[in-house]
Amino acid sequence: MEPREFPKNRKTYHGGNIYRAAEKLGMEESDIMDFSASINPLGVPKSVISEIKDVLKQLCHYPDPETKQLRLWLAKHLGISAQSILCGNGSTELIYLMVRALRPERVLIPAPTFSEYEKAVNNPAKVSCFVLWEKDGFTIDPDKFIAAMSGNESATSYKSSLTTTVDMAFLCNPNNPTGAVLARESVLKIAGAAQRLKCYLVVDEAFIDFSPDNSVISEVENNPYLIVLRSLTKIYALSGLRLGYGIIPQSILDLVKEHKEPWSVNSLAQAAGIAALNDTSYRDETFRVMKTEKKVLEDGFRLLNIKYFPTDANFYLLKMDNALEILSALWAKGILVRDCSDFIGLDETYIRVAVKSNRENMRLLKELAQLCLAW
Amino acid sequence: MEPREFPKNRKTYHGGNIYRAAEKLGMEESDIMDFSASINPLGVPKSVISEIKDVLKQLCHYPDPETKQLRLWLAKHLGISAQSILCGNGSTELIYLMVRALRPERVLIPAPTFSEYEKAVNNPAKVSCFVLWEKDGFTIDPDKFIAAMSGNESATSYKSSLTTTVDMAFLCNPNNPTGAVLARESVLKIAGAAQRLKCYLVVDEAFIDFSPDNSVISEVENNPYLIVLRSLTKIYALSGLRLGYGIIPQSILDLVKEHKEPWSVNSLAQAAGIAALNDTSYRDETFRVMKTEKKVLEDGFRLLNIKYFPTDANFYLLKMDNALEILSALWAKGILVRDCSDFIGLDETYIRVAVKSNRENMRLLKELAQLCLAW
Repeated sequence: MEPREFPKNRKTYHGGNIYRAAEKLGMEESDIMDFSASINPLGVPKSVISEIKDVLKQLCHYPDPETKQLRLWLAKHLGISAQSILCGNGSTELIYLMVRALRPERVLIPAPTFSEYEKAVNNPAKVSCFVLWEKDGFTIDPDKFIAAMSGNESATSYKSSLTTTVDMAFLCNPNNPTGAVLARESVLKIAGAAQRLKCYLVVDEAFIDFSPDNSVISEVENNPYLIVLRSLTKIYALSGLRLGYGIIPQSILDLVKEHKEPWSVNSLAQAAGIAALNDTSYRDETFRVMKTEKKVLEDGFRLLNIKYFPTDANFYLLKMDNALEILSALWAKGILVRDCSDFIGLDETYIRVAVKSNRENMRLLKELAQLCLAW
Repeated sequence: MEPREFPKNRKTYHGGNIYRAAEKLGMEESDIMDFSASINPLGVPKSVISEIKDVLKQLCHYPDPETKQLRLWLAKHLGISAQSILCGNGSTELIYLMVRALRPERVLIPAPTFSEYEKAVNNPAKVSCFVLWEKDGFTIDPDKFIAAMSGNESATSYKSSLTTTVDMAFLCNPNNPTGAVLARESVLKIAGAAQRLKCYLVVDEAFIDFSPDNSVISEVENNPYLIVLRSLTKIYALSGLRLGYGIIPQSILDLVKEHKEPWSVNSLAQAAGIAALNDTSYRDETFRVMKTEKKVLEDGFRLLNIKYFPTDANFYLLKMDNALEILSALWAKGILVRDCSDFIGLDETYIRVAVKSNRENMRLLKELAQLCLAW
């Protein structure tokens, strides 16, 4: 096969967009091997497929705008009150909703991290970046983060120096795209400071299923400034269905609901969420596969002398001098990895790869081996 | 069966919320007869059920954020350019999106009409209502509407008198909950004035499938101030899946997209939309059933001396002195109709009922006959 031209507009790579890649490569979507989105390699749980088939005829009815049954199951599963849970069209809807409802004037966002926080704020002048450094393994020092929240100018800021206290801060834990986790006690230290500063701390735990001990979900009821967002689509491979939820302090719940659009969580997502939560064997199998396959990848990266960062999530951030060429060469073979050059704080030497099935991981390592030998 | 108490908080009735009704009545959701949501009585098309089953395994992938295949089919079906189409999580997402992207300062909204326009503006001080009068059959005089858009104080306003030109106006055509349609030439006259006044005119054609000749969809390319919103969930009975689209002028498309949240249209909705568009026999059968059943209901209303308003949609606005008692008595039997007392410009003597299957329509008429005799 002739190598294809690497497209100039690298936006086409972001977020597992297999559709545009398939078009450009002239391949079937099912033949694309997508390491660019961090999705459970076990695929959609059989229990979910069966449940969706059972409820298809009910699609004529509007979804329950209160997502009541799903919230009751989530509450039971998480050991928290159903009252504090708000479901969304993926956690992405809830990121935008928090900004819209709480109208922050100064927002602190780590860099690199998930780009939707900044996009939701939609005003670069309001955003200050808390830079994470490669030499620290992209970890966050809670004291420095608190100093930045307090408006301490010496706290490194990527875009503009902070002169006032921020009124909203985001934390992605484990962080996307680095995989680094912040220990629960560190998050709680930051959350305590946020409460004193009257700064809303939005902790995005989209990938916390892979590091559950570090969740701060149970602390929301004790801290009116702590908001936790979660996703059901990463661990249950339901990205196409859109399902996330937030745990919101009672003090702001009515305000947040006022800004929420009705019916954003479709009926099938609500039914699928309940089926997935009750599928413990799928979850157990996921953790088993993850453990095995992370070792496979790490052994491979070491063997190939590829720098990777320790991860608590289901993906790896890799640093390679020739990342762009590797990305391009893999792409031509229908293997998508995440180009990280658009993350503030990273550059074109970084890529992110998901942990996938053994067959897929071995294929990636084989292709990487050939490319590393070729260069 | 004992009649049950009519709940004080009538919010539970809105928008076909069969879930809370089933809970309160201790009934199965499937036993509720829901005339409160205007959904095609043929139910979910078999073609859609089959298509969804075929693509369930692909749910592990993110939805195409550009909804490209669906837009291509819509363009073909509508005879317009795919470039001008933007799909949403129901047309509701697009209502909110227009307000968020275009940031109007003064908004003209007919009354009564669909309540989400006002909710999307989220600031009563910015809203002026153009009152529709029962004596006129709730129709809109285009010249008066244009005068109101121009800030003419004599144009009746429900909440506050207009003193400045509005910069956004909504029209629901056919109008919800009255069913009255505004002729295409009248809409175009208003759209022309909107262009001169630099006022965005958002025409919500959620129910236009039942009155297709009055659509102004083809005019969007000639008028940079005309936006048309559409729904795929009314005619195809897919309310639970969430699928709508807008036809947006090229001049504002980039701005609107900037404010759009990614991935709001789930993968199943995208696949279902394409299957539905290609199901011409379902659409033909829908129009046949609608025609027959509208006659059944109108004959029944006349026989029972119930005042109804002529409709171009798949629902009827009814006016009855004892509407509240009737609503309550029907409710106790698991028959939901739409209480219209929360519509600005209506009161507790109005209810809205959907056109449903012959079996359901006959049941409604039978119950209404018994109630009308009893009073």
